[in-house]
Amino acid sequence: MTTYSAPTRDMQFVINELAGLAEVAALPAFAEQEIGPGLLEAVLEEAAKLATEVLAPLNKVGDIQGARMSPQGVIPADGFAEAYQQFVEGGWNGIGCSTEFGGQGLPEIINTATQEMWNSANMSFALCPLLNAGAIEAIRHAGSAEQKALYLPKMISGEWTGTMNLTESQAGSDLSAVRTRAVPEGDHYRLFGQKIFITWGEHNMTPNTVHLVLARTPDAPEGVKGISLFIVPKFLINPDGSLGARNDVNAVSIEHKLGIHASPTCVMAFGDQDGAVGYRVGEENKGLVYMFIMMNEARFKVGLQGLAIAKRAYQAAREYARDRVQGRPVGAKSGERVTIIHHPDVRRMLMLMKSQNEAMRALAYVVAGYMDLARYHPDAAIRKIHQARVDLLIPVVKGWFTEIGIEIASLGVQVHGGMGFIEETGACQHLRDSRITTIYEGTTGIQAADLAGRKLSMDQGAAMRALITEMGEVAEQLGQAPGDDMAAIRTGLGEGVRALAEATQWILDTRDANAVMAVSVDYLMLAGTVCGGWQMARAAQAAQRKLRVGEDLLFHEAKLVSARFYAEHVLPKTAALLISIRNGGVSIMALTAEQF
Amino acid sequence: MTTYSAPTRDMQFVINELAGLAEVAALPAFAEQEIGPGLLEAVLEEAAKLATEVLAPLNKVGDIQGARMSPQGVIPADGFAEAYQQFVEGGWNGIGCSTEFGGQGLPEIINTATQEMWNSANMSFALCPLLNAGAIEAIRHAGSAEQKALYLPKMISGEWTGTMNLTESQAGSDLSAVRTRAVPEGDHYRLFGQKIFITWGEHNMTPNTVHLVLARTPDAPEGVKGISLFIVPKFLINPDGSLGARNDVNAVSIEHKLGIHASPTCVMAFGDQDGAVGYRVGEENKGLVYMFIMMNEARFKVGLQGLAIAKRAYQAAREYARDRVQGRPVGAKSGERVTIIHHPDVRRMLMLMKSQNEAMRALAYVVAGYMDLARYHPDAAIRKIHQARVDLLIPVVKGWFTEIGIEIASLGVQVHGGMGFIEETGACQHLRDSRITTIYEGTTGIQAADLAGRKLSMDQGAAMRALITEMGEVAEQLGQAPGDDMAAIRTGLGEGVRALAEATQWILDTRDANAVMAVSVDYLMLAGTVCGGWQMARAAQAAQRKLRVGEDLLFHEAKLVSARFYAEHVLPKTAALLISIRNGGVSIMALTAEQF
Repeated sequence: MTTYSAPTRDMQFVINELAGLAEVAALPAFAEQEIGPGLLEAVLEEAAKLATEVLAPLNKVGDIQGARMSPQGVIPADGFAEAYQQFVEGGWNGIGCSTEFGGQGLPEIINTATQEMWNSANMSFALCPLLNAGAIEAIRHAGSAEQKALYLPKMISGEWTGTMNLTESQAGSDLSAVRTRAVPEGDHYRLFGQKIFITWGEHNMTPNTVHLVLARTPDAPEGVKGISLFIVPKFLINPDGSLGARNDVNAVSIEHKLGIHASPTCVMAFGDQDGAVGYRVGEENKGLVYMFIMMNEARFKVGLQGLAIAKRAYQAAREYARDRVQGRPVGAKSGERVTIIHHPDVRRMLMLMKSQNEAMRALAYVVAGYMDLARYHPDAAIRKIHQARVDLLIPVVKGWFTEIGIEIASLGVQVHGGMGFIEETGACQHLRDSRITTIYEGTTGIQAADLAGRKLSMDQGAAMRALITEMGEVAEQLGQAPGDDMAAIRTGLGEGVRALAEATQWILDTRDANAVMAVSVDYLMLAGTVCGGWQMARAAQAAQRKLRVGEDLLFHEAKLVSARFYAEHVLPKTAALLISIRNGGVSIMALTAEQF
Repeated sequence: MTTYSAPTRDMQFVINELAGLAEVAALPAFAEQEIGPGLLEAVLEEAAKLATEVLAPLNKVGDIQGARMSPQGVIPADGFAEAYQQFVEGGWNGIGCSTEFGGQGLPEIINTATQEMWNSANMSFALCPLLNAGAIEAIRHAGSAEQKALYLPKMISGEWTGTMNLTESQAGSDLSAVRTRAVPEGDHYRLFGQKIFITWGEHNMTPNTVHLVLARTPDAPEGVKGISLFIVPKFLINPDGSLGARNDVNAVSIEHKLGIHASPTCVMAFGDQDGAVGYRVGEENKGLVYMFIMMNEARFKVGLQGLAIAKRAYQAAREYARDRVQGRPVGAKSGERVTIIHHPDVRRMLMLMKSQNEAMRALAYVVAGYMDLARYHPDAAIRKIHQARVDLLIPVVKGWFTEIGIEIASLGVQVHGGMGFIEETGACQHLRDSRITTIYEGTTGIQAADLAGRKLSMDQGAAMRALITEMGEVAEQLGQAPGDDMAAIRTGLGEGVRALAEATQWILDTRDANAVMAVSVDYLMLAGTVCGGWQMARAAQAAQRKLRVGEDLLFHEAKLVSARFYAEHVLPKTAALLISIRNGGVSIMALTAEQF
């Protein structure tokens, strides 16, 4: 079994030095909370305890046992219900939620670090609060005052969980094909239909579950503009707030999946008898707009899962590489055998894992900081700038992190050699678990279409150009910094930024939408790689400042090395991606379906 | 469940047009066999029947059921023993083996195509004859006349199977650490020790199993020069050839693995009682030399597994993409929904799968053709040239094919979207099965060390330079060919060849062995990508010849497109790899073990 140790040191470095905790802490919204490095450290330490001592040991139990279907509904794996209780009692579910409904109102920049921990420790477990958070966000944004009062306190405390019911067998990436019906009946609706792939759609860890469901009212227009959003509680709620009758919504089966076995993926039947009682959220036919609000939140967090699993996979591989004795140093024919962490190719794999993890963490937390500024900054113009940056980067975080996360989990198996392929070792679980992350909450292709299509065209590339300029300035600054490391980082980042600028222009100039879509994933990966390099360069700058005052030499020297490795061995990928993008879609679109 | 359809059309194209069947058929060794396109087609059709009708349907059964340990030994999954019987009765086991001992003596160029089929159809099953072939090769090369007569006919017919017993818990990549002891006793030895990761180490599909085992004799020197090779049959053989006493060798457990569940991976105990009776093969202390002969053979075939699984994953993804209706064409807001094969990003994924599969197949079969020339050509100089080419390319085939194979299997999951993550769909099995291929028979790191270390330095890069020259000439020839496709292919291949030449020079010039090893996997991937591009360019040339005479337009047009896609979207990777290689090992080697 692989263990997990929360990377609180690196989290603090990133949050304090790169993601601008001080700036966020100074926002009026946080005036009453003493947000600063001290609070951060305390929160991270407490979260780390729960993650490492309670959640992480259940990760393998959950994988082996899985959630099980029973006549009484879905039974979570052993220990999950108790762990969930501890999670709720610790107040962790609501730490990022508004204090108005009982949340702790901590900035996203801190919440994000705890999210990373839950997902590293136990991704199956973490999915339950992840989906709940999306449901909370949808009600908070679009629910009535009454709905907010009725549901939010219990969902924010975690006493109840929320789910997202979007997919139907014919409606996956294309939600316009949703067919579930919602028939009005007095102050509520009756829902009829079947949803699939519903994460934690059913379980007994909480007395109630609040399903957010996309469905069509009788006279709704075709397509995306005819979809409304409904609250369908598992148990109806009496006027006094106590739980009433069981609603007509049931899990009919759970899927047998490659990974995240402990997260029940349910087929949900709505209205097998009289119809499931549902309450409309917000306006009729605006369901998809509301859903996208919660989906944005969920996409960011799925991106974090990419990082989280990659981090745990890295820790396991590193420990194995430090312990496993095999072979001798390069060139030595005799003498002591060494641990494999001394072998260059093992180091290369570990450095790929380590440096890309650090790049992802930095980028994620920086985006979380933007979220705080976009939400709470008193100046509307500054809010707007940061919201644009968040909107631009969410598909990058979702798409790039999860693709890289799988690569890293696979490298984790490779570092273990033959043992990596044996399930007992635990390295495979990370690969199996991570494999869903590029698929759910919008595939990488969907993220790429969002980035290269919608996001770039919405403002004719303005937000991306602003980002490119900012990244280019960091590369320029490195020109004044001393040392070979900084020179190498400057070269790598400079080339990457130029590639991204050129690719962006190509996308903006290309009128053939098929050609743009054909290379959109290359563009997303290019953007992610460069954004990661930008953050690594900033990390190197911060590390150099710390080294100048002699602070924590080993840690900050390693940061410089990691940033240099990223510049020398990861950023070069941008050269390939740019060529591929400029080659366009001709050979991608040429074959008929039969010629494949 | 995914089905399998043997790609006999493409196999024939490659074997006839690219791998030089005519040249091989003209060798005196094949004078008595009427080798040509007709025989090839007949063999492929018969093999395809067995693969698609018998072996492929068992692939999922094997995955779900797995091989099981019982008090009577290892029990294969249902249907495997019967399928093996059919395999043996069809004479498939020995089609590439020398006729001297009952094989059919067909060229490797044809045998290789059948190997691809067995592995596409059922990799777990195919591993049994794969290991047997390695054992046969070792005995054929190093066994005594008596040993050959006693074992080879039954192993070649498949009546008995052979295994390779190398790894011990402390001796994986580093076989010099082998500890199993072989104590002389009259005309034989008694072996004591434990071997792990022994593929098909125990089963009841055949009455006997012939274990080839690495062990140390009492006074053997330390390290690799003190290892001898032994034959340890499961049942001893009486003077009359009948089976005698059960030997003291037993499977004590089998591993619970990520994939290839139906291939029992055994822990083998030798000598738990009196010692396992073993017969030395060849000279004392030369075991590792002999083992490398059979390992070369096995490495080539594991490379084929990379291609084989990737091919099946592609077929499954293609079928799904042709069937699954989701969304509308890019830009269309209304109107008919389309199958996802019309979406540019799905096409990009399918083209990545298709074009790299074709590149791998062409390269593998071309190498198989070299093997025939290296073995059978009457001119020793020509034999030598081709052997050098084979030696150079085996680590490329093993390392690059298997890395790409995993990527393709993972793309196969991605094309299926949410369904890809559900085990019933079958796409995950391909990913799980393929994941071992970069590990066993020498990890990718070991292949890269072999290529960038041993193979390049053995002849100071002569064989690689000859290859680069030949590939450059193909790129030049494309300059005279008409059409945009050919121009694009020329550009892609030309750049790739230049990158490989430069990287090769860098490797040869760099004195720091750690630096070379640190970027050796990049070099291997660069070499593989360019070799694949070379074969795709040759395929495009052949296709253009065929198109000129109006032959099978759809197929040959698709070849051109596929080659162009490879040049435009795969070969650009070489630019990134070259930069990474030139950046060397500084940032890879800089951290202490503690700083990771």
